[in-house]
Amino acid sequence: MSYFPNINKIKYEGKDSKNMLAFRHYNPDEVINGKTMKEHMRFAVAYWHTLTNTGSDPFGAGVNIRDWQTEDPMQEARNKVEANFEMLEKLGVDYFCFHDLDIAPEGNSLEEFFKNIDEITDLIKEKMDKTGKKLLWNTANMFTNPRYVNGAGSSPNAHVFAYAAAQVKKGLDVAKKLGAENYVFWGGREGYETLLNTNMHLEQDNIARLFQMAVDYSKEIGYVIPFLIEPKPKEPSMHQYDFDAATAMAFLYKYNLQDHFKLNLEANHATLAGHTFQHEMRVARTFNALGSLDANHGELVVGWDTDEFPNDLMECTLAMYELIENGGIAPGGINFDSKVRRSSFEMEDLFIAHIAGMDTMARSFKAAAKLKEDGFFDKLVAERYESYSSGIGKDIVDGKANLKTLAEYALKNGEAKNKSSHIEYVKSVLNDYLV
Amino acid sequence: MSYFPNINKIKYEGKDSKNMLAFRHYNPDEVINGKTMKEHMRFAVAYWHTLTNTGSDPFGAGVNIRDWQTEDPMQEARNKVEANFEMLEKLGVDYFCFHDLDIAPEGNSLEEFFKNIDEITDLIKEKMDKTGKKLLWNTANMFTNPRYVNGAGSSPNAHVFAYAAAQVKKGLDVAKKLGAENYVFWGGREGYETLLNTNMHLEQDNIARLFQMAVDYSKEIGYVIPFLIEPKPKEPSMHQYDFDAATAMAFLYKYNLQDHFKLNLEANHATLAGHTFQHEMRVARTFNALGSLDANHGELVVGWDTDEFPNDLMECTLAMYELIENGGIAPGGINFDSKVRRSSFEMEDLFIAHIAGMDTMARSFKAAAKLKEDGFFDKLVAERYESYSSGIGKDIVDGKANLKTLAEYALKNGEAKNKSSHIEYVKSVLNDYLV
Amino acid sequence: MSYFPNINKIKYEGKDSKNMLAFRHYNPDEVINGKTMKEHMRFAVAYWHTLTNTGSDPFGAGVNIRDWQTEDPMQEARNKVEANFEMLEKLGVDYFCFHDLDIAPEGNSLEEFFKNIDEITDLIKEKMDKTGKKLLWNTANMFTNPRYVNGAGSSPNAHVFAYAAAQVKKGLDVAKKLGAENYVFWGGREGYETLLNTNMHLEQDNIARLFQMAVDYSKEIGYVIPFLIEPKPKEPSMHQYDFDAATAMAFLYKYNLQDHFKLNLEANHATLAGHTFQHEMRVARTFNALGSLDANHGELVVGWDTDEFPNDLMECTLAMYELIENGGIAPGGINFDSKVRRSSFEMEDLFIAHIAGMDTMARSFKAAAKLKEDGFFDKLVAERYESYSSGIGKDIVDGKANLKTLAEYALKNGEAKNKSSHIEYVKSVLNDYLV
Amino acid sequence: MSYFPNINKIKYEGKDSKNMLAFRHYNPDEVINGKTMKEHMRFAVAYWHTLTNTGSDPFGAGVNIRDWQTEDPMQEARNKVEANFEMLEKLGVDYFCFHDLDIAPEGNSLEEFFKNIDEITDLIKEKMDKTGKKLLWNTANMFTNPRYVNGAGSSPNAHVFAYAAAQVKKGLDVAKKLGAENYVFWGGREGYETLLNTNMHLEQDNIARLFQMAVDYSKEIGYVIPFLIEPKPKEPSMHQYDFDAATAMAFLYKYNLQDHFKLNLEANHATLAGHTFQHEMRVARTFNALGSLDANHGELVVGWDTDEFPNDLMECTLAMYELIENGGIAPGGINFDSKVRRSSFEMEDLFIAHIAGMDTMARSFKAAAKLKEDGFFDKLVAERYESYSSGIGKDIVDGKANLKTLAEYALKNGEAKNKSSHIEYVKSVLNDYLV
Repeated sequence: MSYFPNINKIKYEGKDSKNMLAFRHYNPDEVINGKTMKEHMRFAVAYWHTLTNTGSDPFGAGVNIRDWQTEDPMQEARNKVEANFEMLEKLGVDYFCFHDLDIAPEGNSLEEFFKNIDEITDLIKEKMDKTGKKLLWNTANMFTNPRYVNGAGSSPNAHVFAYAAAQVKKGLDVAKKLGAENYVFWGGREGYETLLNTNMHLEQDNIARLFQMAVDYSKEIGYVIPFLIEPKPKEPSMHQYDFDAATAMAFLYKYNLQDHFKLNLEANHATLAGHTFQHEMRVARTFNALGSLDANHGELVVGWDTDEFPNDLMECTLAMYELIENGGIAPGGINFDSKVRRSSFEMEDLFIAHIAGMDTMARSFKAAAKLKEDGFFDKLVAERYESYSSGIGKDIVDGKANLKTLAEYALKNGEAKNKSSHIEYVKSVLNDYLV
Repeated sequence: MSYFPNINKIKYEGKDSKNMLAFRHYNPDEVINGKTMKEHMRFAVAYWHTLTNTGSDPFGAGVNIRDWQTEDPMQEARNKVEANFEMLEKLGVDYFCFHDLDIAPEGNSLEEFFKNIDEITDLIKEKMDKTGKKLLWNTANMFTNPRYVNGAGSSPNAHVFAYAAAQVKKGLDVAKKLGAENYVFWGGREGYETLLNTNMHLEQDNIARLFQMAVDYSKEIGYVIPFLIEPKPKEPSMHQYDFDAATAMAFLYKYNLQDHFKLNLEANHATLAGHTFQHEMRVARTFNALGSLDANHGELVVGWDTDEFPNDLMECTLAMYELIENGGIAPGGINFDSKVRRSSFEMEDLFIAHIAGMDTMARSFKAAAKLKEDGFFDKLVAERYESYSSGIGKDIVDGKANLKTLAEYALKNGEAKNKSSHIEYVKSVLNDYLV
Repeated sequence: MSYFPNINKIKYEGKDSKNMLAFRHYNPDEVINGKTMKEHMRFAVAYWHTLTNTGSDPFGAGVNIRDWQTEDPMQEARNKVEANFEMLEKLGVDYFCFHDLDIAPEGNSLEEFFKNIDEITDLIKEKMDKTGKKLLWNTANMFTNPRYVNGAGSSPNAHVFAYAAAQVKKGLDVAKKLGAENYVFWGGREGYETLLNTNMHLEQDNIARLFQMAVDYSKEIGYVIPFLIEPKPKEPSMHQYDFDAATAMAFLYKYNLQDHFKLNLEANHATLAGHTFQHEMRVARTFNALGSLDANHGELVVGWDTDEFPNDLMECTLAMYELIENGGIAPGGINFDSKVRRSSFEMEDLFIAHIAGMDTMARSFKAAAKLKEDGFFDKLVAERYESYSSGIGKDIVDGKANLKTLAEYALKNGEAKNKSSHIEYVKSVLNDYLV
Repeated sequence: MSYFPNINKIKYEGKDSKNMLAFRHYNPDEVINGKTMKEHMRFAVAYWHTLTNTGSDPFGAGVNIRDWQTEDPMQEARNKVEANFEMLEKLGVDYFCFHDLDIAPEGNSLEEFFKNIDEITDLIKEKMDKTGKKLLWNTANMFTNPRYVNGAGSSPNAHVFAYAAAQVKKGLDVAKKLGAENYVFWGGREGYETLLNTNMHLEQDNIARLFQMAVDYSKEIGYVIPFLIEPKPKEPSMHQYDFDAATAMAFLYKYNLQDHFKLNLEANHATLAGHTFQHEMRVARTFNALGSLDANHGELVVGWDTDEFPNDLMECTLAMYELIENGGIAPGGINFDSKVRRSSFEMEDLFIAHIAGMDTMARSFKAAAKLKEDGFFDKLVAERYESYSSGIGKDIVDGKANLKTLAEYALKNGEAKNKSSHIEYVKSVLNDYLV
């Protein structure tokens, strides 16, 4: 059956199209630098926002009309599989992502949950085989169930830790079964509500233990893929241990896990942490740890996660520039961790919103590719730091200088002279790339 | 000469005193757990806020009346030395801290600056020898001079880097000369205004190079003391590389500098980063990197550094608890990186404000000591995490569990049961300690 | 039946009590300035957080154990009435507050909703008559139902406006029936998600029309009580029209409604707007518009409403000082718009948390009363502004000065001289009142 | 003499120009809707940022190279007049704005200050007469001088109030002399550092008194022009009384001043208050109080005023749309309350930055004009609210409905039905206007 009988495969119609159900900017087959847009972008649909989310918020009930909803949870789960593949097909998106809880109901026991997962992943596998659609990453939801009220790997309750471990094990089994290209850890409850009753040392040690067990198990089952941490500063926890990219890296170094983990970065999580998305991506790149992206946008005047579909051209262009500098994002991708606004509650809004997001990212990618082609940032930066390519600057970089030689240099050569950045001009010209 | 002829040595008069120039809570000789308050607290006066600050702000001219100000900068520098030691003496504070620029004028060349530093540090040394006062830490101001407009160690201009290196070298020489117990790096301009023209990789590599040179030089001159990084998220830079404690640790690990550096944490910098002071101290402790403290308070409803003298009893009590848990703060100390409000512009306000800060810290230390004595947090935490001291929890901690054994455990044992935190009661009782 | 069979009436046992279910600070019968604490504080229990809230959050399911939950919504509604009065009785709280939706299920039509309300309010009335408990205020929930996705009075859909009007009418009928002492409007969805599709002029005009209709109707039914607007800056809306106290006043003046409305101020809403609670109360007082209080506390390092039970002594003491300056809060009261932390999910936590909140407010009230008695702020302020009680200052206040006379004065009298605020001392002494 | 001998009159060269000293988007003579861009935009240069600002910040000394600086303050003031008119001429900007302190040194007494103002305004007038350049607005700087440490109109010191009154009187005299088209009040110190020692009632009464005196004096001298309040939430004060547009309106209504004052709104002040610029303009429009604009941009990830030259196309486009909806901005204008970044310290950066700002505003105005021409928002909004143009909706708007008729309507007509906003599509199409 079809959940979107009135929607055909979305086509690229060019920027003058007035068709709400067409791409105006994203042309999947357009080749840029030897690859199609589709290959560059590696878009993924997020199961939770798309298939599971009801549109409720802390002050309001669900508003979303979703025709796959039904009384029987397993039937609903099967319906969602249908809807997912129909959407992927019609949107022309190759990847999807999910939490275990998104695809299968928990039932009344862990055993039943796993059984449900088995049944639904059989169905998903079948669909994948038939359609060629792929799993960008999966993960375990270790934050919704009341048992995780105080965390999962960081729970003060060892029994809860065991549950988390069981879910991670199942998650890795599912990853192998479905050929997931990455596996994600988002620690929504791995943090604290208050430090007053928190043993931060033990909690972080335990999270590291869980991570190490996952590393070990992935080797054991012979399915080693990139593990990705997804930083977020807070919400639902008052503080999440993976506050931002740098914090996650400190953790990985401390526990010597940096070779097994990269980062899955999200625009809205970046701004909640007081950073730009570009910043978080740049930081990850300095650690060679840029793994994958959660594309969305956060309203900067509010203090919670809004997960809008990407719509900010400058934010996305700078992000896509980092992606290009990174040599692409594979085996990661661009996952729309985005939800329709509550006022966009109709079925077709799921398409409209993804189209909007894909168009935004496509425009941004093209702008970034042009910036790269023109050497816009390359020239700017090369010129700005040129003093490090010869003389005393080169000595510094080459490790031939020390405090004494540098002090001598400074004493002998008098005042340093800086050059104006003309940064207002730079920003003005940069705007011209947003077309 | 005396700058405070009407102020005598500040005495402890007890909590009912109405004397603005007396301690109501800080009794330097009071013994707690075998040490005097003075030994526990290791208070330091910050030269910049106390002797140098004029009270100007971005929208207003200097307001502070400071009798040591005079036309001749070297005379003023000498006057400030006098005033500093008079304050230390009368406040009964043993330590002080300074940037090179606080104590000596830059003159017209680096040579002249160093000559000025030599002369003034001779004077300071003489005073130290005479009074027994000590230097908690010194540092180089590498942010005020226009040459540092784009950073010091992170400057795109190698000539500027050389200047920074020269100042650090001189700083270490001064540290040795005056017996400084620590040496601090605060990277006020080590960050970026915009990523558009920033080579973050090179900038951070260069900062690490500067730090390594400092490590090498300190060994060379045989004066190895703790080096301290002082995290701050932003201001004056849009982003500072040492954003917070965790970020600084990621940097240190990345460049393998973690054995030479600890952290100098500031309350106001913590809140600007979206953390509590307690959080930053706790994080540092998990990395065994708590080095020293900059005591102050930031107004949480504004977005810049206000550097108030500490006045928040709960914030300070929780900080002092971390200090006690850390086994004390030595060889670090508690430096008042605090400035009088602009409306407290008179000479005597320098005393009044330090007394207020010392009283706040003393009350807080006593409350924290009582919390420790009563086992308030110890019991709470021990009970909360007791599941890790036996059975499956102990297996996890002891490295005897893995995903498979834990999954089996979870499948076999059914749902986990959590206990209520009764956290509202905990907070209510905690309040009773604030007396 | 009893929902709390193991809990007896909560007693005041003094500050050394270790009984989790006793007041340590709140002694209802203690007389201060001629009134009992109970009369001063006029505490109220919030039906929604206490009886209705499940403990769910945007990332987690409900955790709260609530024995009154059952399959049949009307039976659950009746159970909650029982539980409410049992709590009021055992806590010794005289007032409660509710939204229509808290007390009765919506059923399948507005007619059914109103019928349910009638039945439950009959029951409530009976209980009130028997126990003497009173309704501080009621209100209509015009934000949870999906129909209010775009607002109620500000909805772009006139049919929705009509629903809102119907709920308000019923709310006023209920207020009369139960003798409510106030009626509240909280505009959770009266604002916008984005200005792009918003007609702010019309929306605000319409809200004003709804308010005017309420004023008219209250006169018509002969039940005129204070109407209260509850400001909140954002959440769930991106922007709420009643952003803060001043914004609400601008609205009331614009539509000439200021004689019929006062403000119901909340601590957490104040901080979300970038203010302190004290500030919002002070602003309301300058407009003679302080109506009632929602007592709680917000975590300042996060950007959403946390609604903790009050635990910040300084925040509450300054709030209670404003209350005293206001001549008390009646006919308003102090409503605990506070919810137990998610980790406090047990039944008895409802008692524990209210006790904590009442103790905090009681300590704070006592501190504020002492501040008033000692003339702490009165003296400070009188001295600071004394220049306005004579000479040119008095001329200014009396309207006898103008720009010309003042310019002459300034030209003739030379530079003005300010006095130091010694504000650090003020804050330090203020801390001594927190005992 | 010329301060910019190498810079010729800036020309429009079109968007492909690589000339840093040319307009790529702003064509002053281009006609849109019957008026030239120049007439629409009414650009003004801000004297303080352009002629006076040194580039210092709280952690750094001045960096800006400004050739008009010299030892003699009056000579420097004369030099700045030259430079100002040279810039206006070469930029093709018709307006400028200043604080009294920007144009003339204070000297040693108020008398001397006024004498200096007289001399410099003579010179300015001469230049204005010769060049046709005009004064958009002037104002009195009542925040820099130490006497204003506790405010001006809100000072606790009546003598300081008299000084403020004298400056305002002189400001109005200067406005008349130079034909200023508006007069501005920015209350940088009209607020509080702490409420603890603040009499908010008296302070606000006094500010209102000062404003009323200004109104009276302007009538007396027969020079009645719009008075403009410029809201800002905080900085330098912890809280400024003119927090945002709505707060300023509440104040004006309270003191019955709303007929004499409009608002001068600034982008960066809006975001510091937790709003968008569009929001503040919209709010002002609902009060018919949009007076003039301070164009700039604030970095949203930091908490202080950065005053960047406008560079955000979406922010400016939405602002220009509000301007068009307002029927233009005259007699106000668009003043660049923007300063070059500290790294843009050269003389020519003043031109480069203004060109960037003017190009941004011009692009934005053109986009906004196209949005208006296409009826983009008009259609969207008309359709969304159409239910208010007939039936029950029209009754509501026409005052023919009341709670009873509406309740009847709701009871009779069953559930309301909302339409999806498709807001993701709206935002995506809106992006296409940014070209």
